[in-house]
Amino acid sequence: MRGRFITLEGIDGAGKSTHLRWIARFLMDHGRKVMVTREPGGTAVGEKLRGLVLRGNHGLNPETETLLMFAARREHLDKVIIPALARGHWVLCDRFTDATYAYQGAGSGTDWKKIGLLERWVHDGLQPDLTILLDVSPAVGRQRARRRQQPDRFEREKGAYYRRVRNAYLRRARANSRRVRVIDAGRSLPEIHKELEEILLTYC
Amino acid sequence: MRGRFITLEGIDGAGKSTHLRWIARFLMDHGRKVMVTREPGGTAVGEKLRGLVLRGNHGLNPETETLLMFAARREHLDKVIIPALARGHWVLCDRFTDATYAYQGAGSGTDWKKIGLLERWVHDGLQPDLTILLDVSPAVGRQRARRRQQPDRFEREKGAYYRRVRNAYLRRARANSRRVRVIDAGRSLPEIHKELEEILLTYC
Repeated sequence: MRGRFITLEGIDGAGKSTHLRWIARFLMDHGRKVMVTREPGGTAVGEKLRGLVLRGNHGLNPETETLLMFAARREHLDKVIIPALARGHWVLCDRFTDATYAYQGAGSGTDWKKIGLLERWVHDGLQPDLTILLDVSPAVGRQRARRRQQPDRFEREKGAYYRRVRNAYLRRARANSRRVRVIDAGRSLPEIHKELEEILLTYC
Repeated sequence: MRGRFITLEGIDGAGKSTHLRWIARFLMDHGRKVMVTREPGGTAVGEKLRGLVLRGNHGLNPETETLLMFAARREHLDKVIIPALARGHWVLCDRFTDATYAYQGAGSGTDWKKIGLLERWVHDGLQPDLTILLDVSPAVGRQRARRRQQPDRFEREKGAYYRRVRNAYLRRARANSRRVRVIDAGRSLPEIHKELEEILLTYC
């Protein structure tokens, strides 16, 4: 039986890593085989591209960055995601194409129509079964992300940038309301887990 | 006055480097400012991507490789080619998009229609003013390329691969006959230079 493909999205500091671990545990407790991966990255070449984009100091053209994200994604789908789904694993992916619309699109200025062309080019019809958008205000995200040791290039961006990214995510959620579930991630962990549990049980 | 954009194409061992130097000298002798560059590469990030593709051992999906080529190209156009043309330089580029059709397309199997979509995405209407296709048989190219110390991943490919690449170049030339000039590069240097001179003088 083909597994499910679940992506987690949200601005930096929304709590993706924490909730991703919780979801993985929850699914394993329900007898599912789980594979956890991330974007950009997830493959040898993808991690190198992640380094170029997140840690590089090349002043990349936003369209170059968008193409690199989709190059990493093509490899990730081919080598990791599609084979894992075929083996019956549930794939939990920390960021996917919605992040490209939010960051490279609304954040950095690549036209959404051009992102849509690459999405069709690369996805070949595949979409996540479920996307969980962890929504927090940029102020809260900022406060949480600030505790990290070494912020990457995106984490150093200004407040206006994060407002654009957050709004873009919410716009994507409205336009894809069957796939994307928005979670208010400013609440306590037990409240969030309760809502995640309800959502996940409808897929189990 | 905007400069001219000239690309050189051909299979490995066709003599691109030799003829590129000769063309650069010829144009400088005719009072042109010349900039020489190459693909994949030409920018800091482009050279890193060149390393990933030519020297890497990732067994890349051909579509990933195609996306990486166009990512490098977007950056190259933005940071190097378009500004140089605007400053009035003549840009001589060792390989460009025809090479993607030939190598990633005919060589490795990426659909030409999908390459065409990326070409439109990335070029934004810009095309070389002139493309010189140095045509040799795979046997001759092979013999010349073999003299090199460290063949890259493509140079280690087999004869059938090179026949596909060469035929793809010739097909591109037929479909773009106003832009692409095919030179029989199996002849002597003086014969080739005489033909190059005639072609270049019509652009000077």
